[in-house]
Amino acid sequence: VERIAIIGTGLIGGSIGLALKGAKLSGLEVVGFDLDRSTAGEAKRRGVVDRNAPSPAEAVRDAKMVIIATPPLAVSSVMQEISENLAEGTVVTDTASTKVEVRRYAQEFLPEHVSFVGGHPMAGKEVPGIKNADAALFQGAAYCVIPSPQASEGAVKSVLGLVSVLGAEPLFIDAEEHDQYAAAISHMPLVVSTALFTLARNSPAWDDIAPLAAGGFTDVTRLASGDPRMAHDICVTNTDAVVHWLDRFIEELQRYRGLIQSDRKGLFRAYSEAQLQRDAFVLGEKPRRKVEADLPSTREQLSGMIFGGLIASRMEKFEKEMGQAGGAKRRSVLDDDD
Amino acid sequence: VERIAIIGTGLIGGSIGLALKGAKLSGLEVVGFDLDRSTAGEAKRRGVVDRNAPSPAEAVRDAKMVIIATPPLAVSSVMQEISENLAEGTVVTDTASTKVEVRRYAQEFLPEHVSFVGGHPMAGKEVPGIKNADAALFQGAAYCVIPSPQASEGAVKSVLGLVSVLGAEPLFIDAEEHDQYAAAISHMPLVVSTALFTLARNSPAWDDIAPLAAGGFTDVTRLASGDPRMAHDICVTNTDAVVHWLDRFIEELQRYRGLIQSDRKGLFRAYSEAQLQRDAFVLGEKPRRKVEADLPSTREQLSGMIFGGLIASRMEKFEKEMGQAGGAKRRSVLDDDD
Repeated sequence: VERIAIIGTGLIGGSIGLALKGAKLSGLEVVGFDLDRSTAGEAKRRGVVDRNAPSPAEAVRDAKMVIIATPPLAVSSVMQEISENLAEGTVVTDTASTKVEVRRYAQEFLPEHVSFVGGHPMAGKEVPGIKNADAALFQGAAYCVIPSPQASEGAVKSVLGLVSVLGAEPLFIDAEEHDQYAAAISHMPLVVSTALFTLARNSPAWDDIAPLAAGGFTDVTRLASGDPRMAHDICVTNTDAVVHWLDRFIEELQRYRGLIQSDRKGLFRAYSEAQLQRDAFVLGEKPRRKVEADLPSTREQLSGMIFGGLIASRMEKFEKEMGQAGGAKRRSVLDDDD
Repeated sequence: VERIAIIGTGLIGGSIGLALKGAKLSGLEVVGFDLDRSTAGEAKRRGVVDRNAPSPAEAVRDAKMVIIATPPLAVSSVMQEISENLAEGTVVTDTASTKVEVRRYAQEFLPEHVSFVGGHPMAGKEVPGIKNADAALFQGAAYCVIPSPQASEGAVKSVLGLVSVLGAEPLFIDAEEHDQYAAAISHMPLVVSTALFTLARNSPAWDDIAPLAAGGFTDVTRLASGDPRMAHDICVTNTDAVVHWLDRFIEELQRYRGLIQSDRKGLFRAYSEAQLQRDAFVLGEKPRRKVEADLPSTREQLSGMIFGGLIASRMEKFEKEMGQAGGAKRRSVLDDDD
């Protein structure tokens, strides 16, 4: 019997358990632990785990792999609790959204005879908890893999095997890079989405404003429905990067503010470029990580040419329409632009 | 034959046409016009209109109702082009996202013998154009109705009839209120969503950042894929309100920045409240517009009691978990809080 322990069987740990059990690997036993009793019970009922252990230390006994799927700050106490029970050669991994702090916990608390390989699946739902766990959650998602310097080759392969069972794509990255990039594309957007909701919700005019809410507001504020403990831990364990990107985002908003107030051609151009670029992004033109940073790829050159041509023809049409709009409108609405 | 003219048969005008034709009202003829020839052709092919007219002025001839479904700035030139061809008693309405400017265009350009009733369906898609038109787009959505002071009772009833055919819920509101509230819940979020995309996309590190993008980033930046001309016109015709809400939003981001840097309990509380409030909002607890502003409703009292209790118990659990976390963690991560 090969034993895997999952500490924390909420949305992420629960989904990993479902995928592992769904793969029907022979001789695999999944042992779970969750601080929340009803989560642990649900994990057993849904077949996420074969059995629950009474403590993290008991869960990891004789395990070949330990997956810590708790909020980032809790990874520290879990590592302290399990460290004495880890067998020689155990692979320890985690799923926390921030990696520099977690690496530090591993260095501080894990024994030298285990291999730590950090992980972060770039997938999730705004609705937390095991009730939303889904074996297909990680299908096609990027899965960041951050081996510690001491991790054995076999340990890295084991984590790549886990990534493969989950249907995800491994992405090797170092912890500092991860935390910076994740701050830009995940952590700062979480703050923005939540702040957008709370600004409207806490407005004295909320009762008048809310009836006008449509799908746009609901989507853009979606991340405000996520697990508050997770959001808290992310901000607390990646403070500098989140604050850095928040500051840059405020500058970007100020740039749009300026365009809105005094540069309408620039505003139209900004919206036009954003639309084309986002459509390309959604259609799957995610850039691969560049090997030679200074050489633009054929794809980039091509998309630069296509975008450049599209934007030029749009700007021409826009200026023509604005010019045709007639004297009354021009005087009143477009007076600063003509 | 009762004739309705739709000027602009993109996503909104096209969806209105589909709903009107789908209602199979006897003796109804829908005449369309669109500046874009391929849009006009597609409108005819999809049965959005019975026929296209060669100009807006031709389209409105003998029409009982004229629906202007163009970007906000274009409403002005359309009104100028059609004004001489409008028959006595014609009902003129529009679907523009901003209402104060449009009311001014109507006062300036429409003849006194017609009734103008502004409209704004609070529904849409981020993907523009007639190819995304959908008869069910307005089902259950709020539909703002803003009669001009001169509009006849019959004209208002006609527009309410249109709202009813679309399956939407009429919401009477005045133009100034509309523009303020829509700025908070729709226009400013559009700027925020777009700016969030362009900040990441224009970063020199984009090629490294993008592979980490997951569903959260895609959803929160969704509005960046909308029609750039529409986004431009909204900002240009509602500048003061959009800028006002942008400034308030920047203050809200600064508040979160402060919580992240130096008030972790406050941060957890903010995320917790946001989650509970947004879940309630999504579950349909949209407040109705208050009649007596100072008397909290039973719903509000109840939800205040429930929320208050939930938040208190969450804070207690949070503080307990943070307290249990052990010396090493407390020193390193929570040193400013305990």
